[in-house]
Amino acid sequence: MHEDQLLPAEPGVRAIARELYRHAKDLPLISPHGHVDPAILADDRPFPDPARLIVVPDHYITRMLASQGIEPAALGVPSLDGTAVQTDGRTIWRLLAANWHLFRGTPSRLWTERVLTEVFEVQTALSVRTADEVYDAIAARLADPEFRPRALFERFNLEVLATTESPLSDLGAHAKLAADGWGGPGGRVITTFRPDDLVDVDWPGWEDRVAQLGAGTYAQFLDRLRERRLAFIAAGATSSDHGHPTAATLSLSPGEAAALFDRARRGRVEPGDAERFRAHMLVEFARMSVEDGLVMQLHPGAVRNHNAALYARHGRDVGGDIPGPTEYVRALRPLLDEFGTDRRFRIVLYTLDETVFTRELAPLAGGYSAVFLGAPWWFLDSPEGLRRFREAVTETAGFYNTAGFVDDTRAFCSIPVRHDVARRIDAGFLARLVAEHRLPLDEAAETIADLAYHLPKRVFQRTVHNGVTQ
Amino acid sequence: MHEDQLLPAEPGVRAIARELYRHAKDLPLISPHGHVDPAILADDRPFPDPARLIVVPDHYITRMLASQGIEPAALGVPSLDGTAVQTDGRTIWRLLAANWHLFRGTPSRLWTERVLTEVFEVQTALSVRTADEVYDAIAARLADPEFRPRALFERFNLEVLATTESPLSDLGAHAKLAADGWGGPGGRVITTFRPDDLVDVDWPGWEDRVAQLGAGTYAQFLDRLRERRLAFIAAGATSSDHGHPTAATLSLSPGEAAALFDRARRGRVEPGDAERFRAHMLVEFARMSVEDGLVMQLHPGAVRNHNAALYARHGRDVGGDIPGPTEYVRALRPLLDEFGTDRRFRIVLYTLDETVFTRELAPLAGGYSAVFLGAPWWFLDSPEGLRRFREAVTETAGFYNTAGFVDDTRAFCSIPVRHDVARRIDAGFLARLVAEHRLPLDEAAETIADLAYHLPKRVFQRTVHNGVTQ
Amino acid sequence: MHEDQLLPAEPGVRAIARELYRHAKDLPLISPHGHVDPAILADDRPFPDPARLIVVPDHYITRMLASQGIEPAALGVPSLDGTAVQTDGRTIWRLLAANWHLFRGTPSRLWTERVLTEVFEVQTALSVRTADEVYDAIAARLADPEFRPRALFERFNLEVLATTESPLSDLGAHAKLAADGWGGPGGRVITTFRPDDLVDVDWPGWEDRVAQLGAGTYAQFLDRLRERRLAFIAAGATSSDHGHPTAATLSLSPGEAAALFDRARRGRVEPGDAERFRAHMLVEFARMSVEDGLVMQLHPGAVRNHNAALYARHGRDVGGDIPGPTEYVRALRPLLDEFGTDRRFRIVLYTLDETVFTRELAPLAGGYSAVFLGAPWWFLDSPEGLRRFREAVTETAGFYNTAGFVDDTRAFCSIPVRHDVARRIDAGFLARLVAEHRLPLDEAAETIADLAYHLPKRVFQRTVHNGVTQ
Repeated sequence: MHEDQLLPAEPGVRAIARELYRHAKDLPLISPHGHVDPAILADDRPFPDPARLIVVPDHYITRMLASQGIEPAALGVPSLDGTAVQTDGRTIWRLLAANWHLFRGTPSRLWTERVLTEVFEVQTALSVRTADEVYDAIAARLADPEFRPRALFERFNLEVLATTESPLSDLGAHAKLAADGWGGPGGRVITTFRPDDLVDVDWPGWEDRVAQLGAGTYAQFLDRLRERRLAFIAAGATSSDHGHPTAATLSLSPGEAAALFDRARRGRVEPGDAERFRAHMLVEFARMSVEDGLVMQLHPGAVRNHNAALYARHGRDVGGDIPGPTEYVRALRPLLDEFGTDRRFRIVLYTLDETVFTRELAPLAGGYSAVFLGAPWWFLDSPEGLRRFREAVTETAGFYNTAGFVDDTRAFCSIPVRHDVARRIDAGFLARLVAEHRLPLDEAAETIADLAYHLPKRVFQRTVHNGVTQ
Repeated sequence: MHEDQLLPAEPGVRAIARELYRHAKDLPLISPHGHVDPAILADDRPFPDPARLIVVPDHYITRMLASQGIEPAALGVPSLDGTAVQTDGRTIWRLLAANWHLFRGTPSRLWTERVLTEVFEVQTALSVRTADEVYDAIAARLADPEFRPRALFERFNLEVLATTESPLSDLGAHAKLAADGWGGPGGRVITTFRPDDLVDVDWPGWEDRVAQLGAGTYAQFLDRLRERRLAFIAAGATSSDHGHPTAATLSLSPGEAAALFDRARRGRVEPGDAERFRAHMLVEFARMSVEDGLVMQLHPGAVRNHNAALYARHGRDVGGDIPGPTEYVRALRPLLDEFGTDRRFRIVLYTLDETVFTRELAPLAGGYSAVFLGAPWWFLDSPEGLRRFREAVTETAGFYNTAGFVDDTRAFCSIPVRHDVARRIDAGFLARLVAEHRLPLDEAAETIADLAYHLPKRVFQRTVHNGVTQ
Repeated sequence: MHEDQLLPAEPGVRAIARELYRHAKDLPLISPHGHVDPAILADDRPFPDPARLIVVPDHYITRMLASQGIEPAALGVPSLDGTAVQTDGRTIWRLLAANWHLFRGTPSRLWTERVLTEVFEVQTALSVRTADEVYDAIAARLADPEFRPRALFERFNLEVLATTESPLSDLGAHAKLAADGWGGPGGRVITTFRPDDLVDVDWPGWEDRVAQLGAGTYAQFLDRLRERRLAFIAAGATSSDHGHPTAATLSLSPGEAAALFDRARRGRVEPGDAERFRAHMLVEFARMSVEDGLVMQLHPGAVRNHNAALYARHGRDVGGDIPGPTEYVRALRPLLDEFGTDRRFRIVLYTLDETVFTRELAPLAGGYSAVFLGAPWWFLDSPEGLRRFREAVTETAGFYNTAGFVDDTRAFCSIPVRHDVARRIDAGFLARLVAEHRLPLDEAAETIADLAYHLPKRVFQRTVHNGVTQ
């Protein structure tokens, strides 16, 4: 990796960007939102083979290969329908290497290359010719205790990593982590409260999950959720997370909400019920946040399981989701009417729809004390996406209404490079402001450190103290 | 302020941009649309203290501070509900200074800094430490007759400034200006006809305002509006302005329009009536424009008073509006069907939704003789917003279907810097075209002078002569 | 024309871009989609006068002039309503020259200038003063046999050019071309199957055209269309093309489809019928593609004949269409559910709505094996549009899910410059990736050759072999 990777090409701006990057480069990583399996760190077992570590679970990689006709089953993606799946890691790895050109210009290429060179210290460039050599080199490292998860966690300079769990989780991995001095409130590995599977009445099995929660009535449902939030807080959680089809929010009366809940329990949902219940529950969760201090995160706008053939064969979360147009201004109004200027409340908004950055999200974040802008997410978590984000939101929301970088990843080994990419892009953006005489160098240097470390720490590690958020 | 502020960083392009900027820099300012209170120039009294001049009335500034939990009341924003409001200018100013870092990367920072250095000749950078020193320096200037509004008007090289008034205004300030040789047709300070409060039947008090206009019937309503337009033209107006939730237009029959008007007068509006009446009135105002020659301006797309808590405490126009998605192509069709190619008609379209620039507005302006593109507005009136505007619209609409820069500001002292920012961004954009061998230097130089001066003058100072617009 | 036209201004990046452009510059042109009249090449007659060649048929040019009040009739655009139309080529040409400044910054200017200098070897810059000189110089060339269509085809280094015809066309020009060794399967000039006039029941005259096709029933309608596709394939077609108001797709049952068809035949369409029939027929055409191997192209999102006055006087396709917001994710779901991962199917998606590039189209192309991204189209086929396209889609879809440049033009003489612009913009984009150390130079060089030549050839010249697309 060249030391100037991703910095602007113009020599004058690049020199400034280098200087700014120096102020962020070595700051500890705050990973306030992501999807790493906590068992990886709880158990601290060696990682599996290179294909199972890098290819099989990464839907950025498998979907790109699928888009050129390479079946996910040939890449080892587990099937639900009995389709035979490739199990030989080396064969999967060779398929990746043979199609490596497909990833030119993508963040997957950049992330993977740097995981190979920086985490696994493999300097050979990946190609058809070198596939086996690279595979063997990574495999050799994986056998070394220095490449176990906790050792890597230390090496990555991670200060805190938040995982994401359903309220139904027993949080067993987190209990193990706490017992080992790694978890619990203020710990290095913490959880996040993600109740989508309990508020989405359209999601098959909802009734069973509600029963598992122990909620016979709507009032019990709210009580059980409140209790689970406290259990999550005891496991270190500082935030909740909500992945919804839309950003709709709604304040139903308790009676209306209970009636809707009862209909759903009896399997008699009416058209619009699912959307209305999700929308209503966002306002309820906001109310709970005011009480218990969890920062709310909202990830709306994915059309889930769009690829019907993929869903039928391989199920959820394997690259079949596609973004759709997403509206926030009218959708969030009920929630913001109640809590938008409440000092005890904080919500971090994400989007898959870039058009809302200047039009909706920056004005909302620049106008409501409760609203912060989450980092570019998923398809937008990329050099160009991160750059466009700063260009789009800064003039209206400034830097201090943004919540810092969030890696949102399942791929533990890619966490450092993802944060590094964000730091480099921010360095380039700030360098341009300096070069165009819009911001003095010393203030830009302070800003990049805030973006890289201080802001996410402050936004996500809030505590409610005497009724006012710190 | 560095002399190269906002010019592209690459030295070759910057050299061209500097040369181009030289052709626009000293041209007089045409301010064809804005919200300066005409009494400021009619009375020519000294400005109040620095906080009341720069902080209190500027919702860009108060909303950013509010977004980080600083109450507008603490910034002196007048309240409607009896909330105590800070009245000490120095205390307000210190709050701004203590939070000055929030404005990094925003146009508010850039505008304010240049108002301090260039208008008030204060060279000390604002910070917690220097708050009082800066405050005292500005206050001292404000006591000097050379810093009175008319003296500044001359110093700013303003050729014409349009204010904006309701048809219900008696235009008293403009009469005073005319008496002093500053106002009236062809004068230096002119008015703009803005009838929103009379066509928005949803706006509380509409019935009273219609009564105040003297309109008992729909026919009288149209007559009174026509008469007020003539009074505005006598006070120098060359344009009308329309701020609507959407760009919808509609041709109701006279009977339908009258029936709707009557329902509204009796307080019996039906769902959709308000939107239909606004839409219909846009077509009626277009028809009036054909007769009396006022250029029509349309500012659609703001969701007004979104922040309920702010609205309840402080009312309208204090930073609580948020843009929403806005459609023009189908919405404007009824109006364009009637007047889009009428040589006696001209409409300038603005937007808060950048997505329409390439998709809708540039194709409309590049296809209808009546349509011109207004400058980036409100949240988009910023270096990045202005740059994206040129990048988005030029290839389809060219330069000569755009209407020149519009400052749209209440902040009189910021007018020169706002125009200067637009000139610098245009210089940078044109310099890139020259550097990429897409436009010869001499044509770029002619173009920047047209954008800065000749185009807004031509678009807004039209006269109807023998039935054809000049 | 400067040799570095459109390459990035920064000297380091420009040097890389020059090197990359060298790898694409001289590759043959593949023109897989456009609207050149095949009779031009079948008859190989001299072109008409310069105005009839360059101004009259180019709606990019006539609409821009109309936007500043120059009537299309004064530019020689044929009228339907008896309006007198200018017939003197020189008079039309002088009007263009007198208003040449309107085109500053537009692709029309760049294309026209390079047609003049490179195709017609006229080095004099166009202006009011030189209008006649330029006109005479072009006219002189047009009399020269070396400037006849087939001679230019050879000079342009065109490998294959696809025209576009209705199923009702007898393909006579293509028969003549085949007889001369220029057409037919694998030929240099081929056709494209465009059935819009037969599936759009709202288009006046639909019943007559269906009768002309020989279809009395829905079953016959499908049969006749299948037969015409085979005739088109015999005339060299490798793709179909579909220009629809929206991207809606729908699977009606055969009974529902037949009932709708019968209603339409009896002139009794119900609201929504036209949209449903178009949507349904897209799925039917996809099904036919699976059988006969034609690559499907979809061009949705134009609001046709928006300018009512222009339409009344001059009819269709003269610059009166305006883009509207266009949704793909939900709209295409029925079609993709059936064929999105079918190895025998391929669809190339275009858009006039840039907002979908990152949000919808890149994720779809990066997730479905059947989906490819078409080049920026119409208002977006411009230097800035092409650059934004790569910036928007590459990170999610890569380069290899894009289908290469498509000129989509009626203007035969502008084909080389249009392709050259795309190659230069791609060189600049790839050069930035190289300069930012995101892609090695050798891979960038391979990529630009793929984009310019190998990819469009592979995507559009597919054959179905043993049930799998090659």
